[in-house]
Amino acid sequence: MSKIIKEVQESLINLKRVKPLVHCITNYITANDCANAILAVGGSPAMADAIEEVEQMATQAQALVLNLGTIANELVDAMIKAGKAANKAGVPVVFDPVGVGATNYRKESTFRLLKEVKFSVIRGNMAEIKVLCGMESNSKGVDSVEDVKEDAAKDIARELAKKLNTVVAITGVIDYISDGERVITIRNGNEMLTRVTGTGCMTTALIGAYLGGGSSPLHCAVAGVATMGMVGEIAFDNLKENQGSGSFRVSLIDGMYNLKEADFQNVGKINE
Amino acid sequence: MSKIIKEVQESLINLKRVKPLVHCITNYITANDCANAILAVGGSPAMADAIEEVEQMATQAQALVLNLGTIANELVDAMIKAGKAANKAGVPVVFDPVGVGATNYRKESTFRLLKEVKFSVIRGNMAEIKVLCGMESNSKGVDSVEDVKEDAAKDIARELAKKLNTVVAITGVIDYISDGERVITIRNGNEMLTRVTGTGCMTTALIGAYLGGGSSPLHCAVAGVATMGMVGEIAFDNLKENQGSGSFRVSLIDGMYNLKEADFQNVGKINE
Amino acid sequence: MSKIIKEVQESLINLKRVKPLVHCITNYITANDCANAILAVGGSPAMADAIEEVEQMATQAQALVLNLGTIANELVDAMIKAGKAANKAGVPVVFDPVGVGATNYRKESTFRLLKEVKFSVIRGNMAEIKVLCGMESNSKGVDSVEDVKEDAAKDIARELAKKLNTVVAITGVIDYISDGERVITIRNGNEMLTRVTGTGCMTTALIGAYLGGGSSPLHCAVAGVATMGMVGEIAFDNLKENQGSGSFRVSLIDGMYNLKEADFQNVGKINE
Repeated sequence: MSKIIKEVQESLINLKRVKPLVHCITNYITANDCANAILAVGGSPAMADAIEEVEQMATQAQALVLNLGTIANELVDAMIKAGKAANKAGVPVVFDPVGVGATNYRKESTFRLLKEVKFSVIRGNMAEIKVLCGMESNSKGVDSVEDVKEDAAKDIARELAKKLNTVVAITGVIDYISDGERVITIRNGNEMLTRVTGTGCMTTALIGAYLGGGSSPLHCAVAGVATMGMVGEIAFDNLKENQGSGSFRVSLIDGMYNLKEADFQNVGKINE
Repeated sequence: MSKIIKEVQESLINLKRVKPLVHCITNYITANDCANAILAVGGSPAMADAIEEVEQMATQAQALVLNLGTIANELVDAMIKAGKAANKAGVPVVFDPVGVGATNYRKESTFRLLKEVKFSVIRGNMAEIKVLCGMESNSKGVDSVEDVKEDAAKDIARELAKKLNTVVAITGVIDYISDGERVITIRNGNEMLTRVTGTGCMTTALIGAYLGGGSSPLHCAVAGVATMGMVGEIAFDNLKENQGSGSFRVSLIDGMYNLKEADFQNVGKINE
Repeated sequence: MSKIIKEVQESLINLKRVKPLVHCITNYITANDCANAILAVGGSPAMADAIEEVEQMATQAQALVLNLGTIANELVDAMIKAGKAANKAGVPVVFDPVGVGATNYRKESTFRLLKEVKFSVIRGNMAEIKVLCGMESNSKGVDSVEDVKEDAAKDIARELAKKLNTVVAITGVIDYISDGERVITIRNGNEMLTRVTGTGCMTTALIGAYLGGGSSPLHCAVAGVATMGMVGEIAFDNLKENQGSGSFRVSLIDGMYNLKEADFQNVGKINE
């Protein structure tokens, strides 16, 4: 068994043992999905975004998830307050810059967050990550189609991780995850994941659940991204006649609920 | 094949070709359902409602959906800002006056919106549309039971469409859609659609997706309403023993995902 | 048939006859689930929280549901305004103090609500109810693990109900419901209910739906809690290979849709 597979399996064992409280400040579109994803893999979600309570909630949590999906000024303020409290308390923070390239407001909010909060992991699609690198991107709303060759993609992940002293996870047909040194690729997933809202947000929430288990950010990012990719494959294989993205979405949560360590070796296409 | 069936089929072809970005400012109850509905038929939803970004988002979208479900003053302000930007950029706008008869606040907000924004399509149930016409209605919360004879209903749709220079879609047991000249009726659907939240909102979101494909508002309104009616019938037929409104809801999205042009002719009960 | 079973069955008959409008001021995480739960058992949900409209909405409703899930100051203000209007109009109000022990802000907001609004029913888990009693609790985010012996639990329910002149429903492995005199226990349910977000919120929403039918608060609280417990058992029994918490969640709504009076006798484990 490869080193990374073993590390990822340990992340799942830790998550299931700790049953971490995962504090999420996220968008109202996919908050229900994120909560159910965290519960399915064995964590306990706490969705709370009032500025009066986010410090207290973040401090008692084992991980904090910040998601830019439907931001507003007071929400970004709450994210910064929660993020700083988490940083101070040693609680790992994962960030999802949803649709950061779509509007200037998202870009400015993201750079405010990057300046104020130290993130353990940042997860986005290639268009979103490019914006964080100061590169041009083809963002279209919150989805993205980017054609970047494998070596270039690895470089983007590694360089941004180094620059921001974080773990960067770029998700797409191939996923690239780097801590600035190692680069892991994942080839799981299914095109149908792009036909369900919130699969990106749920991936970030899963990374948060793994972080809550106490494993290293690189292992958690790989575990979270691989989990979504694997359950996407399994859900697609389980589709019956006349079923579509509605049943597929239900199966994603079923797959997370039934996730086992061995899946990372048997279903995972994870390489270093 | 009748003229309207052909027009509706073309709307679906256009939607699938364009894969439009559909900007929605909508309620937090059914936003996830609306996003999944748009994705299921082939569009790309962008849910964004911060006043700082709605103009930029609406301008780059192919359609804008405004939904009154859970309004607040700042949300109505954002809707007006987005709506005006969309009007200026030639982006079609569809409006859903959810529960407009239930409170004075909804009525006032609706008339603010009607004054400031030009809508390509307005979709509501009979009680909601009656309020827009200045008629008495039996609104009960956000649902509605209205008993209006077919000829009178056609007149209401046609007259309001003419008055507001828009397409009016009245949904119910029979649906009535008019551009002020033509009146289309649809007899698809199933009673169970009234037992799932968001079927109205999703219908409006589907109209938004079709509008994003660039077809004419009348065709798009008929296509969106017929899509929901047809998938409601198919979902009901697919129900197994012990299943109910939970499984039915999942099947609705499956049906949208599997929607084909031929369905409008084979399943659709669309008449002019 | 025992007295309480008969009372609970009547609550369901009343609910189905009245088809009550249930006004909910609730959180954006599980609002969709709550709306679908209310619709599944035969009610009509109206989710509205703008301060400008909550009085008018609450006054025309048959029941009001207040849920602390994702509060903010303006939301608590709206809850108080709606609650007072409901009290004045004789509309029963049910309260869910979600995660009240997790932060001081939730505690303060809860005590503001308790001071200003008269509740027909308060539903929470043992940790939440303990906070309302001024007792120490092991709150962890919004979930809770409390080990309280049966007699002590009954006392807690009875005493708080007496003190606050309300019906208290404590949900957990065993549920305890008291109006200050009678104490009902329910032993339905399944551990998997703790792996789906919103099962607590939905239980409260169901109580709201029953209250809307006009039955007495004690009967409605027992009916709502028993409904969730029973559909949890049925959903678990219906799970097929490879299914998990995603399918289970869908089945919960199916079970509510198919709920029959006889279930309280045949499936219910309700004792006085």
